Amino acid sequence: MESGDDILVIASGGLDSTALAYHLLDQGHRLRLVSFDYGQRHRVELRAAARIADEINIPHEVVDLVSVGRLLSGSALTDPEVAVPDGHYTDLSMRSTIVPNRNAIMTAVAVGIASASGCECVALGVHAGDHAIYPDCRPAFVDLADRLARTATEDTESPIRVIAPFVTWTKRQIVARGASLGVPFAMTWSCYRGGERHCGSCGTCIERREAFELASVPDPTAYGAIASSTSKGR
Amino acid sequence: MESGDDILVIASGGLDSTALAYHLLDQGHRLRLVSFDYGQRHRVELRAAARIADEINIPHEVVDLVSVGRLLSGSALTDPEVAVPDGHYTDLSMRSTIVPNRNAIMTAVAVGIASASGCECVALGVHAGDHAIYPDCRPAFVDLADRLARTATEDTESPIRVIAPFVTWTKRQIVARGASLGVPFAMTWSCYRGGERHCGSCGTCIERREAFELASVPDPTAYGAIASSTSKGR
Repeated sequence: MESGDDILVIASGGLDSTALAYHLLDQGHRLRLVSFDYGQRHRVELRAAARIADEINIPHEVVDLVSVGRLLSGSALTDPEVAVPDGHYTDLSMRSTIVPNRNAIMTAVAVGIASASGCECVALGVHAGDHAIYPDCRPAFVDLADRLARTATEDTESPIRVIAPFVTWTKRQIVARGASLGVPFAMTWSCYRGGERHCGSCGTCIERREAFELASVPDPTAYGAIASSTSKGR
Repeated sequence: MESGDDILVIASGGLDSTALAYHLLDQGHRLRLVSFDYGQRHRVELRAAARIADEINIPHEVVDLVSVGRLLSGSALTDPEVAVPDGHYTDLSMRSTIVPNRNAIMTAVAVGIASASGCECVALGVHAGDHAIYPDCRPAFVDLADRLARTATEDTESPIRVIAPFVTWTKRQIVARGASLGVPFAMTWSCYRGGERHCGSCGTCIERREAFELASVPDPTAYGAIASSTSKGR
């Protein structure tokens, strides 16, 4: 990848995609951010993404996929009837947080937007910790998504590439890299429950806490205490 | 593919995907149809798809991607500022009808819906006549879309496959096969202009007329006469 590419970053407002944006800016690329509203209960993350785009002064678009999200029911992230599980991010119980084909959908839309808006590349913030539970975060997925995007745009001046620079990184490495780049971690949102504060006990909160600890980076997150029994429908 | 699969057919309301639905029903599969509203000027095709689903008595869902379509601007199919070109379907001028990454987006959403609703397979009605202009209709695209879908759903009970049984067929062959299956061609919609009648002069109308002629099947379509100079913004 040449320095100075125009890259559309899929930004969830979370720690990984925010660190990715800073990482790519540091490499000299021009960025745009795109976020997706698929009816996730933690859509507070969309406000986080908007604030981060504002902080680094780059364009940000939110794509409305709420009607699509409704058809992908059954996930704890979108279905009020399914509780967000407590536990470690890599526990099998976290499978209830899978939104089927979510990353392929977001990537496909982002590739279309990139092609229509003159970007050469779409970047995803997936990382090694995602692999255990989410098949659409694994290296094989990223490789095929890249090949599909290039093929679907092969007649255009700039066929679109899909990259995931952190796909083999641990979250600890991402936190360490982010800290060295001055990522405003306190502005990022991870918690699947989407309450007023990070709950501290869902899979992604536990993974977040652990990453700061392992990286020996101070964790600026204000965690609340939410018992899992009260989490349903939040 | 085993007989008796549950297949989600991406149905545009056009001739190809309608014939595909009949073809798959004839093979003993159970079908559902899904259509996409991406703000196409010929969204009259969505009503055609609904009528066809009703005719064969299978479930039909229309997915709202209007906000996505707005971000894929610049195509004659979605942008009122870009005129629908007259000419042959395979002319280079037809490139103005490309909606970037459209089939990848529709396929990705359909794969998610298939996974959430217990289907094993997503079927696309692309055919050989599409290859010249639309890269996301070519065999390489279908092959990669299939591999991506299987990979993104590989941990589920039934990883989703993507098939395109007509991908190497000509439209003449599709019309001939459809006629043998009793496809109600008069209910299908092709015209990109989306007026009250098929215009008869845009690329897809010309391709449609030609296919009936070559297949020696009576064409039930009532074509109107719309001069290309008056087509802008229709």
